[in-house]
Amino acid sequence: MYKINTNYQKLPGSYLFSNIAKKVNAFTEAHPEADIIRLGIGDVTQPIAPAMIEAMHKAVDEMGDAKTFHGYAPDLGYAFLRDAIVAHDYQARGCDISADEIFVSDGAKSDSGNIQEIFSVDNRIAVCDPVYPVYVDSNVMAGRTGVYDANTQMWSNVIYMPCTAENNFVPEFPKENPDIIYLCLPNNPTGTTLTKDQLQEWVDYANRIGAIIIYDAAYEAYISESNVAHTIYECQGAKTCAIEIRSFSKNAGFTGVRLGFTVVPKDLVCDGVSLNGMWARRHGTKFNGAPYIIQRAGEAVYSDAGQAQIKEQVGYYMNNAKTIYTGLKDAGYEVYGGINAPYIWLKTPDHMTSWDFFDFLLEKANVVGTPGSGFGPSGEGYFRLTAFGSYENSVRALERIKNL
Amino acid sequence: MYKINTNYQKLPGSYLFSNIAKKVNAFTEAHPEADIIRLGIGDVTQPIAPAMIEAMHKAVDEMGDAKTFHGYAPDLGYAFLRDAIVAHDYQARGCDISADEIFVSDGAKSDSGNIQEIFSVDNRIAVCDPVYPVYVDSNVMAGRTGVYDANTQMWSNVIYMPCTAENNFVPEFPKENPDIIYLCLPNNPTGTTLTKDQLQEWVDYANRIGAIIIYDAAYEAYISESNVAHTIYECQGAKTCAIEIRSFSKNAGFTGVRLGFTVVPKDLVCDGVSLNGMWARRHGTKFNGAPYIIQRAGEAVYSDAGQAQIKEQVGYYMNNAKTIYTGLKDAGYEVYGGINAPYIWLKTPDHMTSWDFFDFLLEKANVVGTPGSGFGPSGEGYFRLTAFGSYENSVRALERIKNL
Repeated sequence: MYKINTNYQKLPGSYLFSNIAKKVNAFTEAHPEADIIRLGIGDVTQPIAPAMIEAMHKAVDEMGDAKTFHGYAPDLGYAFLRDAIVAHDYQARGCDISADEIFVSDGAKSDSGNIQEIFSVDNRIAVCDPVYPVYVDSNVMAGRTGVYDANTQMWSNVIYMPCTAENNFVPEFPKENPDIIYLCLPNNPTGTTLTKDQLQEWVDYANRIGAIIIYDAAYEAYISESNVAHTIYECQGAKTCAIEIRSFSKNAGFTGVRLGFTVVPKDLVCDGVSLNGMWARRHGTKFNGAPYIIQRAGEAVYSDAGQAQIKEQVGYYMNNAKTIYTGLKDAGYEVYGGINAPYIWLKTPDHMTSWDFFDFLLEKANVVGTPGSGFGPSGEGYFRLTAFGSYENSVRALERIKNL
Repeated sequence: MYKINTNYQKLPGSYLFSNIAKKVNAFTEAHPEADIIRLGIGDVTQPIAPAMIEAMHKAVDEMGDAKTFHGYAPDLGYAFLRDAIVAHDYQARGCDISADEIFVSDGAKSDSGNIQEIFSVDNRIAVCDPVYPVYVDSNVMAGRTGVYDANTQMWSNVIYMPCTAENNFVPEFPKENPDIIYLCLPNNPTGTTLTKDQLQEWVDYANRIGAIIIYDAAYEAYISESNVAHTIYECQGAKTCAIEIRSFSKNAGFTGVRLGFTVVPKDLVCDGVSLNGMWARRHGTKFNGAPYIIQRAGEAVYSDAGQAQIKEQVGYYMNNAKTIYTGLKDAGYEVYGGINAPYIWLKTPDHMTSWDFFDFLLEKANVVGTPGSGFGPSGEGYFRLTAFGSYENSVRALERIKNL
């Protein structure tokens, strides 16, 4: 008689964004006339820019011609894309990363969820709190997190590193040594980040205690301050302690196109075993490459035209961020983020819980945001708004919130 | 100090097709003038047919316009595709499968590798021998397979069900009860299949002993005989014991396009837990949907034009299969498969080992095939040729083999 993986049953409720979708659907059914503005899920709204559209049309045509048809892609990605990534994202920043350390995938969410597989189930993870839910949930499914306490909303075997206004959203080194440390910088959901010097301290710490850092840099393109690292490999020693996960979703609007990559340096060796080789084996066994058409779109992101176009798009969203940030501040809200990331993180007014404020905002302003508590216990009393809507909707949402 | 998942270290050598690629690359470097014909890896060679090309161009244009842009897809796939799948692949065959039992993915390899995650590590798997390597390897990585014996090439905790000429490639019920049974029908690599009546016996067996069948139907489009089931849900009772994995790679040439789906019936319940819900949770946590553009291509596969075009393509490959099968038989080879599948499975001549025959064929005929032993111990002494090359190359390869 077969048995299920009972770790799944430990997961409380459903995935955060599924919950939000259900609440919004219920509200829409009850109020079909409501003009809802969605600043909840971090999904982009600007169309794919022309350079990438052109590249995809060309690749589609290639797929329709026997002479230029492409079947199975190389497991780890096409050389044209891996080479472009290396040149632009690493070598141009003085980071010695080579193409055989790049693993192209169908997106950062898959990689964030799957990367834990190559580590022992005995490893103890540390996460910033609040945090993108995938890190913890994928470790719950693997049986790494112990028991869930519904009161504290914490797992017994997870090390939480609170990031709140009290510590300026800079996590402290945990009292107990973790084995795997998840860092998402610039941060989702708080929109804050660390300086390069602060990140260097984390790299030194990880090397000192023999921990590995899973570094999620999905929001790298939104960095506007010069003292912030665009990749963890700008820090000395990161190649012996860090895996970096990157996405095309937020810099080029690929949320519905699906492309990402993970960097596993060859210097990452544990008990004589190369993590690069392990991840290659995982890719070779459980993945069959990102679509050729999509990889060509990724290549176009690195063309001169592509770079100019995505810079403009990121600028558009960051203008929204500034507008929301400033507007909320002027209205008396306590707000964070929005400078190196497309997220605005606000304190709920009048000590409302995050979900109460979600309901309040949905009902009174028809604006959808994301409850901070959905990202972890220290997110309680906070709320996330994204800058990924249109400028017009950002302004309208702001007006409605101000008028509450 | 972090530790790795040591199950990975148990895997012998590298993935079969990576090994073949290395051997072929080495040969090509030594003999740059060699005109190599590749009938090894099961990759298609015909271009994507016009209906799908047109659908992708249209979808690319939609992605370039704010009014029709699509961001994150629904976790489980767009309704337009799930509805088309249900109508065409299930309801038209009298199978009561609904859209919320369909999970669209980036391909059958991902699903084949990932599906084991929702089951307990204690479960014991049974596989046909020979078999597509992903089933066993993904279970090795999860720690479900025990110890590997290099002599027998068998895992201590895997139940092998030999499929050889001696039993007409029909597996027998194992002596010990398995928990999870992998069946790939029509079969990769042998190209053989079971009749619907034989499959019904497996469904009855699974229901009787409380096992679950992971049914990989990637080659369904190649079925030519009327007494063969196109989906396991044609069998009575399959909805309480079977998950079905399907692919667009072989029916529509999507190996480089990447699209597949898995059917998890709501009737699959274990200790009160819905497997459908578990798989939905996995999708929601570790996957972000197949690209919109690709899902539109999948929809076009079910259009009248798409159906006519892929039927022609499948016919083209099956004509290759017939040509190879008949030619080898005429040349005195012992051959199987090729009637309901695009694979020809042959006995190596003169009791050569599979890898010896691989080397022999590569060196003497410059033809690449796949050693049967790479698919499991009972594949030793067999060899796989695919019908996925061009007709011209199939004929040329055959001539070369005949002349050996």
